[in-house]
Amino acid sequence: MNLDRRLDELKIALPEPPQPLGAYVPAVVAGGLLFLSGMLPLRNGRPAFVGRIGVELTLEEGREAARLAALNAVAVARSAAGAPDRIKRLAKLVAHIASAPDFGDHARVADAASEVFTSLFHGRGGHVRVAVGAVSLPAHVPIELELVFELS
Amino acid sequence: MNLDRRLDELKIALPEPPQPLGAYVPAVVAGGLLFLSGMLPLRNGRPAFVGRIGVELTLEEGREAARLAALNAVAVARSAAGAPDRIKRLAKLVAHIASAPDFGDHARVADAASEVFTSLFHGRGGHVRVAVGAVSLPAHVPIELELVFELS
Amino acid sequence: MNLDRRLDELKIALPEPPQPLGAYVPAVVAGGLLFLSGMLPLRNGRPAFVGRIGVELTLEEGREAARLAALNAVAVARSAAGAPDRIKRLAKLVAHIASAPDFGDHARVADAASEVFTSLFHGRGGHVRVAVGAVSLPAHVPIELELVFELS
Repeated sequence: MNLDRRLDELKIALPEPPQPLGAYVPAVVAGGLLFLSGMLPLRNGRPAFVGRIGVELTLEEGREAARLAALNAVAVARSAAGAPDRIKRLAKLVAHIASAPDFGDHARVADAASEVFTSLFHGRGGHVRVAVGAVSLPAHVPIELELVFELS
Repeated sequence: MNLDRRLDELKIALPEPPQPLGAYVPAVVAGGLLFLSGMLPLRNGRPAFVGRIGVELTLEEGREAARLAALNAVAVARSAAGAPDRIKRLAKLVAHIASAPDFGDHARVADAASEVFTSLFHGRGGHVRVAVGAVSLPAHVPIELELVFELS
Repeated sequence: MNLDRRLDELKIALPEPPQPLGAYVPAVVAGGLLFLSGMLPLRNGRPAFVGRIGVELTLEEGREAARLAALNAVAVARSAAGAPDRIKRLAKLVAHIASAPDFGDHARVADAASEVFTSLFHGRGGHVRVAVGAVSLPAHVPIELELVFELS
Protein backbone atom coordinates (compact mmCIF):
# COMPACT_ATOMS: atom_id res chain seq x y z
CA MET A 1 0.00 0.00 0.00
CA ASN A 2 1.18 3.45 -0.96
CA LEU A 3 1.19 6.24 1.66
CA ASP A 4 0.30 8.99 -0.82
CA ARG A 5 -2.60 6.96 -2.24
CA ARG A 6 -3.85 6.24 1.28
CA LEU A 7 -3.68 9.97 2.12
CA ASP A 8 -5.76 10.64 -1.02
CA GLU A 9 -8.31 7.96 -0.11
CA LEU A 10 -8.71 9.45 3.36
CA LYS A 11 -8.81 12.99 1.86
CA ILE A 12 -5.98 14.08 4.13
CA ALA A 13 -3.89 17.04 2.92
CA LEU A 14 -0.57 17.07 4.76
CA PRO A 15 0.74 20.38 6.13
CA GLU A 16 4.21 21.66 5.22
CA PRO A 17 6.74 19.87 7.48
CA PRO A 18 7.40 22.25 10.42
CA GLN A 19 10.90 23.66 10.97
CA PRO A 20 12.91 22.94 14.15
CA LEU A 21 12.74 25.57 16.94
CA GLY A 22 16.47 25.23 17.76
CA ALA A 23 19.83 23.56 17.12
CA TYR A 24 18.50 20.19 15.95
CA VAL A 25 17.08 18.47 12.86
CA PRO A 26 13.52 17.23 12.15
CA ALA A 27 14.42 13.56 11.61
CA VAL A 28 17.31 11.10 11.89
CA VAL A 29 17.71 7.56 10.52
CA ALA A 30 19.74 5.32 12.88
CA GLY A 31 19.69 1.59 13.60
CA GLY A 32 17.13 1.05 10.83
CA LEU A 33 14.64 3.33 12.61
CA LEU A 34 13.42 6.83 11.77
CA PHE A 35 13.44 9.08 14.85
CA LEU A 36 11.48 12.36 14.77
CA SER A 37 11.92 15.51 16.79
CA GLY A 38 9.07 16.49 19.10
CA MET A 39 6.04 17.25 16.95
CA LEU A 40 3.86 20.14 18.12
CA PRO A 41 0.40 21.33 17.04
CA LEU A 42 1.89 24.04 14.82
CA ARG A 43 0.14 25.54 11.80
CA ASN A 44 2.29 27.66 9.45
CA GLY A 45 5.04 27.62 12.06
CA ARG A 46 2.89 28.93 14.91
CA PRO A 47 1.09 27.16 17.78
CA ALA A 48 -2.53 26.54 16.74
CA PHE A 49 -3.42 25.65 20.36
CA VAL A 50 -2.03 27.09 23.61
CA GLY A 51 -2.69 25.97 27.19
CA ARG A 52 -3.17 22.81 29.27
CA ILE A 53 -5.76 20.17 28.45
CA GLY A 54 -8.40 20.11 31.15
CA VAL A 55 -7.53 23.64 32.31
CA GLU A 56 -7.37 26.26 29.52
CA LEU A 57 -8.41 23.78 26.80
CA THR A 58 -11.18 21.19 26.60
CA LEU A 59 -10.61 17.51 25.95
CA GLU A 60 -11.98 17.98 22.42
CA GLU A 61 -9.54 20.83 21.71
CA GLY A 62 -6.77 18.60 23.03
CA ARG A 63 -7.80 15.88 20.58
CA GLU A 64 -7.74 18.37 17.68
CA ALA A 65 -4.25 19.45 18.76
CA ALA A 66 -3.15 15.80 18.91
CA ARG A 67 -4.44 15.20 15.40
CA LEU A 68 -2.65 18.29 14.04
CA ALA A 69 0.65 17.24 15.68
CA ALA A 70 0.20 13.75 14.17
CA LEU A 71 -0.29 15.20 10.67
CA ASN A 72 2.86 17.28 11.10
CA ALA A 73 4.66 14.08 12.06
CA VAL A 74 3.46 12.29 8.93
CA ALA A 75 4.63 15.24 6.82
CA VAL A 76 8.10 15.19 8.41
CA ALA A 77 8.42 11.39 8.20
CA ARG A 78 7.32 11.36 4.55
CA SER A 79 9.85 14.06 3.70
CA ALA A 80 12.70 12.47 5.69
CA ALA A 81 12.24 8.89 4.52
CA GLY A 82 13.32 9.75 0.99
CA ALA A 83 10.49 7.80 -0.63
CA PRO A 84 6.96 7.65 0.88
CA ASP A 85 6.96 3.87 0.68
CA ARG A 86 10.10 3.54 2.75
CA ILE A 87 7.99 4.18 5.85
CA LYS A 88 6.59 0.84 6.95
CA ARG A 89 4.61 2.05 9.93
CA LEU A 90 4.74 4.00 13.17
CA ALA A 91 6.54 1.81 15.74
CA LYS A 92 6.32 3.95 18.89
CA LEU A 93 4.51 7.06 20.06
CA VAL A 94 5.05 8.96 23.29
CA ALA A 95 2.37 11.60 23.89
CA HIS A 96 3.44 14.34 26.30
CA ILE A 97 0.24 16.07 27.41
CA ALA A 98 0.32 19.44 29.21
CA SER A 99 -2.10 19.05 32.09
CA ALA A 100 -2.79 19.68 35.78
CA PRO A 101 -2.32 17.13 38.61
CA ASP A 102 -6.00 16.06 38.55
CA PHE A 103 -5.99 15.06 34.84
CA GLY A 104 -6.43 11.38 33.94
CA ASP A 105 -7.81 11.29 30.37
CA HIS A 106 -4.46 10.92 28.59
CA ALA A 107 -5.66 7.88 26.63
CA ARG A 108 -8.57 9.74 25.01
CA VAL A 109 -6.31 12.60 23.91
CA ALA A 110 -3.54 10.34 22.62
CA ASP A 111 -6.08 8.19 20.74
CA ALA A 112 -6.73 11.12 18.39
CA ALA A 113 -3.07 10.91 17.32
CA SER A 114 -2.99 7.10 17.27
CA GLU A 115 -6.03 6.99 15.00
CA VAL A 116 -4.20 9.05 12.34
CA PHE A 117 -1.45 6.44 12.21
CA THR A 118 -3.68 3.36 12.40
CA SER A 119 -5.79 4.68 9.50
CA LEU A 120 -2.71 5.46 7.39
CA PHE A 121 -0.74 2.28 8.09
CA HIS A 122 -3.76 0.00 8.27
CA GLY A 123 -2.77 -3.65 8.03
CA ARG A 124 0.93 -3.10 8.68
CA GLY A 125 0.71 -3.61 12.44
CA GLY A 126 0.03 -1.11 15.21
CA HIS A 127 2.31 0.99 17.38
CA VAL A 128 3.16 0.99 21.06
CA ARG A 129 2.19 4.04 23.05
CA VAL A 130 3.19 5.86 26.19
CA ALA A 131 1.07 8.82 27.38
CA VAL A 132 2.25 11.06 30.20
CA GLY A 133 1.39 14.43 31.73
CA ALA A 134 3.89 17.28 31.27
CA VAL A 135 3.86 20.25 33.63
CA SER A 136 4.76 22.52 30.69
CA LEU A 137 5.64 22.22 26.99
CA PRO A 138 7.58 24.39 24.50
CA ALA A 139 5.76 27.59 23.48
CA HIS A 140 2.89 26.63 25.82
CA VAL A 141 1.41 24.03 23.42
CA PRO A 142 -0.93 21.38 24.91
CA ILE A 143 0.71 18.30 23.36
CA GLU A 144 4.06 17.13 22.02
CA LEU A 145 4.51 13.83 20.17
CA GLU A 146 7.73 11.79 20.28
CA LEU A 147 7.84 9.22 17.46
CA VAL A 148 9.84 6.33 16.05
CA PHE A 149 8.93 4.92 12.62
CA GLU A 150 9.95 1.58 11.18
CA LEU A 151 11.48 1.71 7.70
CA SER A 152 11.04 -1.06 5.15
CA MET B 1 19.36 -19.21 31.36
CA ASN B 2 15.66 -19.67 30.86
CA LEU B 3 13.23 -16.88 31.83
CA ASP B 4 10.47 -19.24 32.97
CA ARG B 5 12.88 -21.26 35.12
CA ARG B 6 14.23 -18.04 36.64
CA LEU B 7 10.66 -16.89 37.43
CA ASP B 8 10.11 -20.26 39.17
CA GLU B 9 13.37 -19.93 41.15
CA LEU B 10 12.36 -16.47 42.34
CA LYS B 11 8.78 -17.71 43.02
CA ILE B 12 7.37 -14.94 40.82
CA ALA B 13 3.94 -15.60 39.30
CA LEU B 14 3.40 -13.28 36.34
CA PRO B 15 0.06 -11.48 36.02
CA GLU B 16 -2.01 -11.75 32.83
CA PRO B 17 -0.55 -9.27 30.28
CA PRO B 18 -2.71 -6.10 30.57
CA GLN B 19 -4.74 -4.92 27.58
CA PRO B 20 -4.12 -1.52 25.91
CA LEU B 21 -6.33 1.41 27.02
CA GLY B 22 -6.73 2.75 23.46
CA ALA B 23 -5.85 2.52 19.75
CA TYR B 24 -2.44 0.90 20.12
CA VAL B 25 -0.79 -2.49 20.71
CA PRO B 26 1.09 -3.83 23.78
CA ALA B 27 4.40 -4.50 22.01
CA VAL B 28 6.23 -3.96 18.71
CA VAL B 29 9.44 -5.51 17.37
CA ALA B 30 11.44 -3.05 15.22
CA GLY B 31 15.14 -2.61 14.52
CA GLY B 32 15.92 -5.77 16.51
CA LEU B 33 14.40 -4.24 19.66
CA LEU B 34 11.17 -4.99 21.50
CA PHE B 35 9.31 -1.79 22.40
CA LEU B 36 6.53 -1.92 25.01
CA SER B 37 3.57 0.38 25.55
CA GLY B 38 3.47 2.30 28.83
CA MET B 39 3.14 -0.24 31.64
CA LEU B 40 0.92 0.80 34.54
CA PRO B 41 0.36 -0.71 38.01
CA LEU B 42 -2.82 -2.47 36.88
CA ARG B 43 -4.25 -5.59 38.50
CA ASN B 44 -7.00 -7.43 36.59
CA GLY B 45 -7.27 -4.43 34.26
CA ARG B 46 -7.78 -1.86 37.03
CA PRO B 47 -5.37 0.57 38.74
CA ALA B 48 -4.11 -1.07 41.96
CA PHE B 49 -2.69 2.29 43.11
CA VAL B 50 -4.04 5.83 42.52
CA GLY B 51 -2.43 9.17 43.38
CA ARG B 52 0.95 10.90 43.41
CA ILE B 53 3.98 9.49 45.22
CA GLY B 54 4.88 11.75 48.12
CA VAL B 55 1.39 13.28 48.20
CA GLU B 56 -1.50 10.76 48.27
CA LEU B 57 0.85 7.74 48.36
CA THR B 58 3.94 6.94 50.45
CA LEU B 59 7.32 6.10 48.99
CA GLU B 60 6.79 2.46 49.95
CA GLU B 61 3.42 2.34 48.13
CA GLY B 62 5.16 3.89 45.11
CA ARG B 63 7.75 1.11 45.18
CA GLU B 64 5.01 -1.54 45.29
CA ALA B 65 3.34 0.14 42.32
CA ALA B 66 6.68 0.17 40.46
CA ARG B 67 7.17 -3.53 41.11
CA LEU B 68 3.65 -4.35 39.88
CA ALA B 69 4.14 -2.32 36.68
CA ALA B 70 7.46 -4.14 36.13
CA LEU B 71 5.80 -7.55 36.47
CA ASN B 72 3.16 -6.47 33.95
CA ALA B 73 6.00 -5.49 31.62
CA VAL B 74 7.66 -8.90 31.96
CA ALA B 75 4.31 -10.58 31.21
CA VAL B 76 3.81 -8.49 28.06
CA ALA B 77 7.41 -8.94 26.87
CA ARG B 78 7.27 -12.70 27.44
CA SER B 79 4.03 -12.94 25.51
CA ALA B 80 5.20 -10.67 22.65
CA ALA B 81 8.64 -12.17 22.15
CA GLY B 82 7.20 -15.42 20.82
CA ALA B 83 9.53 -17.58 22.90
CA PRO B 84 10.57 -16.66 26.48
CA ASP B 85 14.23 -17.11 25.61
CA ARG B 86 14.11 -14.63 22.77
CA ILE B 87 14.27 -11.84 25.36
CA LYS B 88 17.92 -11.23 26.13
CA ARG B 89 17.47 -8.49 28.73
CA LEU B 90 15.89 -5.14 29.44
CA ALA B 91 17.92 -2.51 27.57
CA LYS B 92 16.21 0.73 28.66
CA LEU B 93 13.70 1.83 31.27
CA VAL B 94 12.08 5.25 31.60
CA ALA B 95 10.14 5.62 34.86
CA HIS B 96 7.51 8.36 34.75
CA ILE B 97 6.61 9.09 38.37
CA ALA B 98 3.52 11.14 39.29
CA SER B 99 4.69 13.57 41.93
CA ALA B 100 4.64 17.14 43.21
CA PRO B 101 7.31 19.81 42.58
CA ASP B 102 9.11 19.11 45.88
CA PHE B 103 9.69 15.38 45.16
CA GLY B 104 13.26 14.14 44.65
CA ASP B 105 13.27 10.41 45.49
CA HIS B 106 12.72 9.14 41.94
CA ALA B 107 15.72 6.81 42.16
CA ARG B 108 14.35 4.89 45.16
CA VAL B 109 10.98 4.38 43.46
CA ALA B 110 12.47 3.36 40.12
CA ASP B 111 14.88 0.96 41.85
CA ALA B 112 11.91 -1.24 42.81
CA ALA B 113 11.25 -1.74 39.09
CA SER B 114 14.92 -2.07 38.15
CA GLU B 115 15.43 -4.78 40.75
CA VAL B 116 12.76 -6.96 39.10
CA PHE B 117 14.71 -6.87 35.83
CA THR B 118 18.19 -7.25 37.33
CA SER B 119 17.04 -10.33 39.28
CA LEU B 120 15.41 -11.88 36.19
CA PHE B 121 18.17 -11.11 33.68
CA HIS B 122 21.04 -11.56 36.12
CA GLY B 123 24.36 -11.94 34.33
CA ARG B 124 23.10 -10.70 30.96
CA GLY B 125 24.05 -7.05 31.56
CA GLY B 126 22.05 -4.26 33.13
CA HIS B 127 19.77 -1.60 31.69
CA VAL B 128 19.98 2.15 31.36
CA ARG B 129 17.42 4.19 33.24
CA VAL B 130 15.78 7.58 33.09
CA ALA B 131 13.49 8.65 35.96
CA VAL B 132 11.35 11.78 35.69
CA GLY B 133 8.43 13.41 37.47
CA ALA B 134 5.09 13.56 35.63
CA VAL B 135 2.46 16.10 36.65
CA SER B 136 -0.26 13.49 35.88
CA LEU B 137 -0.55 9.97 34.48
CA PRO B 138 -3.33 7.97 32.76
CA ALA B 139 -6.17 6.92 35.10
CA HIS B 140 -4.37 8.71 37.97
CA VAL B 141 -1.79 5.94 38.48
CA PRO B 142 1.42 6.85 40.35
CA ILE B 143 3.91 5.34 37.88
CA GLU B 144 4.21 4.45 34.20
CA LEU B 145 7.13 2.46 32.79
CA GLU B 146 8.45 2.91 29.24
CA LEU B 147 10.63 -0.05 28.19
CA VAL B 148 12.88 -1.35 25.42
CA PHE B 149 14.06 -4.96 25.53
CA GLU B 150 16.95 -6.50 23.61
CA LEU B 151 16.13 -9.68 21.70
CA SER B 152 18.64 -12.45 21.17
CA MET C 1 37.35 13.23 12.61
CA ASN C 2 38.54 12.17 16.03
CA LEU C 3 36.42 12.96 19.12
CA ASP C 4 39.41 13.50 21.40
CA ARG C 5 41.09 15.82 18.90
CA ARG C 6 37.85 17.77 18.53
CA LEU C 7 37.57 18.09 22.34
CA ASP C 8 41.13 19.47 22.36
CA GLU C 9 40.38 21.94 19.56
CA LEU C 10 37.34 23.22 21.46
CA LYS C 11 39.36 23.24 24.73
CA ILE C 12 36.73 21.07 26.40
CA ALA C 13 37.91 19.00 29.38
CA LEU C 14 35.45 16.19 30.01
CA PRO C 15 34.36 15.47 33.60
CA GLU C 16 34.71 12.00 35.11
CA PRO C 17 31.73 9.89 33.92
CA PRO C 18 29.10 10.09 36.73
CA GLN C 19 28.07 6.92 38.56
CA PRO C 20 24.46 5.63 38.50
CA LEU C 21 22.20 6.60 41.42
CA GLY C 22 20.58 3.13 41.62
CA ALA C 23 20.24 -0.40 40.23
CA TYR C 24 21.13 0.37 36.61
CA VAL C 25 24.15 0.94 34.36
CA PRO C 26 25.40 4.15 32.67
CA ALA C 27 25.16 2.87 29.08
CA VAL C 28 23.91 -0.05 26.99
CA VAL C 29 24.59 -1.02 23.37
CA ALA C 30 21.56 -2.64 21.70
CA GLY C 31 20.29 -2.70 18.12
CA GLY C 32 23.40 -0.88 16.93
CA LEU C 33 22.58 2.10 19.16
CA LEU C 34 24.18 3.36 22.36
CA PHE C 35 21.55 4.20 24.99
CA LEU C 36 22.54 6.33 28.01
CA SER C 37 20.97 6.59 31.43
CA GLY C 38 19.47 9.95 32.37
CA MET C 39 22.30 12.48 32.52
CA LEU C 40 22.08 15.08 35.29
CA PRO C 41 24.02 18.29 35.96
CA LEU C 42 26.28 16.56 38.50
CA ARG C 43 29.80 17.71 39.39
CA ASN C 44 31.94 15.25 41.40
CA GLY C 45 28.84 13.15 42.01
CA ARG C 46 26.74 15.98 43.44
CA PRO C 47 24.06 18.22 41.87
CA ALA C 48 25.72 21.45 40.74
CA PHE C 49 22.29 23.06 40.26
CA VAL C 50 19.08 22.55 42.25
CA GLY C 51 15.57 23.89 41.54
CA ARG C 52 13.19 24.57 38.68
CA ILE C 53 14.13 26.71 35.68
CA GLY C 54 12.05 29.88 35.70
CA VAL C 55 11.30 29.55 39.44
CA GLU C 56 14.35 28.97 41.67
CA LEU C 57 16.82 29.20 38.74
CA THR C 58 17.19 31.67 35.87
CA LEU C 59 17.13 30.69 32.21
CA GLU C 60 20.90 31.28 32.05
CA GLU C 61 21.52 28.96 35.02
CA GLY C 62 19.32 26.39 33.30
CA ARG C 63 21.49 26.64 30.19
CA GLU C 64 24.66 26.12 32.25
CA ALA C 65 23.06 23.05 33.85
CA ALA C 66 22.12 21.75 30.38
CA ARG C 67 25.70 22.18 29.18
CA LEU C 68 27.09 20.37 32.23
CA ALA C 69 24.67 17.45 31.77
CA ALA C 70 25.69 17.28 28.09
CA LEU C 71 29.40 17.09 28.99
CA ASN C 72 28.63 14.28 31.44
CA ALA C 73 26.83 12.50 28.59
CA VAL C 74 29.84 12.84 26.29
CA ALA C 75 32.09 11.46 29.05
CA VAL C 76 29.82 8.44 29.57
CA ALA C 77 29.38 7.79 25.85
CA ARG C 78 33.14 8.04 25.21
CA SER C 79 33.83 5.61 28.03
CA ALA C 80 31.06 3.15 27.03
CA ALA C 81 31.75 3.07 23.30
CA GLY C 82 35.06 1.30 23.80
CA ALA C 83 36.91 3.53 21.35
CA PRO C 84 36.17 7.29 21.04
CA ASP C 85 35.78 6.95 17.27
CA ARG C 86 33.08 4.33 17.56
CA ILE C 87 30.61 7.12 18.39
CA LYS C 88 29.34 8.49 15.08
CA ARG C 89 27.04 11.16 16.47
CA LEU C 90 24.20 11.91 18.84
CA ALA C 91 21.01 10.57 17.21
CA LYS C 92 18.34 11.63 19.71
CA LEU C 93 18.06 13.89 22.74
CA VAL C 94 15.11 14.23 25.10
CA ALA C 95 15.51 17.16 27.49
CA HIS C 96 13.36 16.86 30.62
CA ILE C 97 13.23 20.35 32.14
CA ALA C 98 12.00 20.92 35.71
CA SER C 99 9.66 23.89 35.46
CA ALA C 100 6.34 25.42 36.49
CA PRO C 101 3.12 25.40 34.41
CA ASP C 102 3.78 28.89 32.95
CA PHE C 103 7.21 27.97 31.48
CA GLY C 104 7.61 27.94 27.69
CA ASP C 105 11.34 28.48 26.96
CA HIS C 106 12.29 24.80 26.73
CA ALA C 107 13.97 25.30 23.35
CA ARG C 108 16.44 27.90 24.65
CA VAL C 109 17.46 25.67 27.56
CA ALA C 110 17.78 22.53 25.45
CA ASP C 111 19.80 24.42 22.82
CA ALA C 112 22.66 24.75 25.32
CA ALA C 113 22.90 20.94 25.36
CA SER C 114 22.33 20.56 21.61
CA GLU C 115 25.15 23.00 20.87
CA VAL C 116 27.65 20.81 22.73
CA PHE C 117 26.81 17.89 20.44
CA THR C 118 26.62 19.87 17.19
CA SER C 119 30.06 21.38 17.88
CA LEU C 120 31.58 17.97 18.71
CA PHE C 121 29.98 15.98 15.88
CA HIS C 122 30.10 18.78 13.33
CA GLY C 123 29.57 17.50 9.80
CA ARG C 124 28.26 14.08 10.84
CA GLY C 125 24.57 15.09 10.81
CA GLY C 126 22.45 16.56 13.57
CA HIS C 127 20.18 14.98 16.18
CA VAL C 128 16.45 14.96 16.76
CA ARG C 129 15.20 16.58 19.93
CA VAL C 130 12.23 16.44 22.25
CA ALA C 131 11.97 19.00 25.09
CA VAL C 132 9.34 18.64 27.79
CA GLY C 133 8.55 20.06 31.22
CA ALA C 134 8.92 17.74 34.23
CA VAL C 135 7.11 18.53 37.48
CA SER C 136 10.12 17.17 39.43
CA LEU C 137 13.46 15.47 38.74
CA PRO C 138 15.80 13.20 40.75
CA ALA C 139 17.67 14.98 43.56
CA HIS C 140 15.84 18.22 42.62
CA VAL C 141 18.07 18.92 39.59
CA PRO C 142 16.71 21.33 36.93
CA ILE C 143 17.39 19.16 33.85
CA GLU C 144 17.81 15.52 32.88
CA LEU C 145 18.99 14.42 29.43
CA GLU C 146 17.89 11.16 27.78
CA LEU C 147 20.21 10.25 24.88
CA VAL C 148 20.70 7.76 22.05
CA PHE C 149 23.99 7.78 20.12
CA GLU C 150 24.67 6.22 16.74
CA LEU C 151 27.72 3.97 16.56
CA SER C 152 29.86 3.63 13.45
